[in-house]
Amino acid sequence: MKFSVVARSGTSRAGVLDLAHARVETPVFMPVGTYGTVKGLDPSAIESLGFRLVLSNSYHLHLSPGEDLVAAAGGLQRFMGWPGAVLTDSGGYQLFSLKDVVKVTDEGVESRSPLDGAREFITPERMVQVQVRLGVDIAMVLDHCPPSDAPKDKVAEAMERTTRWAKRCLTVARPDETALFGIVQGGVHLDLRRAHLDEVASLPFDGLALGGFSVGEPPDVMHELVDDLAPRLPDERPRYLMGVGTPIDLIRSVQAGMDMFDCVMPTRHARNGQLFTSRGRINVANARFRTDMDPPDPACGCPTCRRFSTAYLSHLYRRKEILYSVLATTHNLWFYRQLMTDLRQAILDGHLEETAHRLSQPWL
Amino acid sequence: MKFSVVARSGTSRAGVLDLAHARVETPVFMPVGTYGTVKGLDPSAIESLGFRLVLSNSYHLHLSPGEDLVAAAGGLQRFMGWPGAVLTDSGGYQLFSLKDVVKVTDEGVESRSPLDGAREFITPERMVQVQVRLGVDIAMVLDHCPPSDAPKDKVAEAMERTTRWAKRCLTVARPDETALFGIVQGGVHLDLRRAHLDEVASLPFDGLALGGFSVGEPPDVMHELVDDLAPRLPDERPRYLMGVGTPIDLIRSVQAGMDMFDCVMPTRHARNGQLFTSRGRINVANARFRTDMDPPDPACGCPTCRRFSTAYLSHLYRRKEILYSVLATTHNLWFYRQLMTDLRQAILDGHLEETAHRLSQPWL
Repeated sequence: MKFSVVARSGTSRAGVLDLAHARVETPVFMPVGTYGTVKGLDPSAIESLGFRLVLSNSYHLHLSPGEDLVAAAGGLQRFMGWPGAVLTDSGGYQLFSLKDVVKVTDEGVESRSPLDGAREFITPERMVQVQVRLGVDIAMVLDHCPPSDAPKDKVAEAMERTTRWAKRCLTVARPDETALFGIVQGGVHLDLRRAHLDEVASLPFDGLALGGFSVGEPPDVMHELVDDLAPRLPDERPRYLMGVGTPIDLIRSVQAGMDMFDCVMPTRHARNGQLFTSRGRINVANARFRTDMDPPDPACGCPTCRRFSTAYLSHLYRRKEILYSVLATTHNLWFYRQLMTDLRQAILDGHLEETAHRLSQPWL
Repeated sequence: MKFSVVARSGTSRAGVLDLAHARVETPVFMPVGTYGTVKGLDPSAIESLGFRLVLSNSYHLHLSPGEDLVAAAGGLQRFMGWPGAVLTDSGGYQLFSLKDVVKVTDEGVESRSPLDGAREFITPERMVQVQVRLGVDIAMVLDHCPPSDAPKDKVAEAMERTTRWAKRCLTVARPDETALFGIVQGGVHLDLRRAHLDEVASLPFDGLALGGFSVGEPPDVMHELVDDLAPRLPDERPRYLMGVGTPIDLIRSVQAGMDMFDCVMPTRHARNGQLFTSRGRINVANARFRTDMDPPDPACGCPTCRRFSTAYLSHLYRRKEILYSVLATTHNLWFYRQLMTDLRQAILDGHLEETAHRLSQPWL
């Protein structure tokens, strides 16, 4: 993995991230494909939308179809028929948020499969091995994510465990093509976050992530923390804000100096009828769209808006037709990709502040 | 509408059907898109598969989103974003098979909407008007389809009513671009079928259809009747076998001299895990496919088989991922399109019998 910052604007950066399976321009949004598919989209469609890097989940893939099968297929990219790169979350967040955790000890996590209830003991080393078997471009360390309402001493405890686990993850042999990122925890506590950042940054990870955000805390709390933390993250390594977020979250976090993002929002919202447009979010279930012969966003150049009316999408949505999800997901991912492209170009052109202000308007 | 037979082989014909929105080569299979979408497929994908004509359902579209909305969108082809032609079933079969019929009189049908229970009185004239409003290339007359186990006198009664309705359908004004096809009923009774065929053929329809087949009768019963009836249908007009069928049904019916077909089988079976291959039908849910790194049909050139393993499809199917339906539907429609292309080419090349024999092997 190679990362270079090619332009700056205040604390923001535009970069190029060379991965084993793709060159990725940052700041970048990664579509989420938990089970090895971005729901509803053919890999060639994802590529056409301009994405080169998608996120998948190593814990879910470990459960089904299993890393051995994926390895036999020649790696996750090949299994998925995806001509780009893949980052996998380690599953820490999923394990803890899905309540699949039976017991956490320093040694690891005893989990219960959401698919068949099978129990398994998961260690930090094991999850890196799973990701190596999957052949991903970027693996994430297993982290301990406490609930968003956990008291400070529990947050500190989980954070310290995450550090010990991070060091163990680094001991696992991996090929050159698999980068490994560390994760900074510490909840909403600035002192914990700063201390943990320094600790994780001192370890030889290829990139650093801020984890445990967008888990229920008010957006302003997150942004105050990210504004403080982003510039403290090592300048020469990519900075990844996990699980974030809304368009305004992305704009503000790029301004703070973050480089990478992922979120289920554009894809999940699409399936639920919510479309992101240059005039804000619209709900295709709304009665007024039944007869709207304009595309969802007349200003949008996506394959959906170029060809279909909101009335047709509204009809497909009401009839629960598969094509609705396909077309809506296409639109929302185009919107997110375009947002990131606009922000990157603004950094290159030196007018990020104006662009960020303009792009924020529909969301204020 | 213009139809020309360009080659013959025994009772079989290869033809060209010029419709308002497309030139269609026959024999042709029409993918089914009941609610104005072939489930899971983007119109551009349907076109890429080689289809120029799809079937939709005027009764369903009348219920939702309504023919007025579709007319306001510029017609069904435009509403769907479909760069080809559309034939709509009148809804007769659906009305009767879905048990939406409250009462049938000579005047028409009192129906109950499956969407909201609303009652409506549907006449033959009204259903042609609906199809004209939809702007379809080929409209079908409203027919009275008795249950497959109806006694002969009930079948004869429904047949005579279908004739009276057919004549009323012909009185409705329609633009040049909308062709109208008549439908031959008569159940499994050769004498009724022959008599009704003569009667419907004497009317100035643009094409003739055999309706009420593939409704539960044994395949051999249908094929014996179709073998007898197809050559009796007017030679200069297209011959459409409605709702048929399996690969072997299509092969046999093309040999009998039929030109047009539609069936939910390739699309519905795809969604249920059933894939058509050159070695017969396979079920991706079968455990042996979990680890099968070959495509579903190594001999197939479809966009699914060119890029994905059966193991990946099996994984997507188990996880109920949308992409499974998209890729499986793509494969099955490619198979049906290829079958028709092969049959047509064999008629042109004068070796239909050998080709039909070869293509039948996996299905015997």
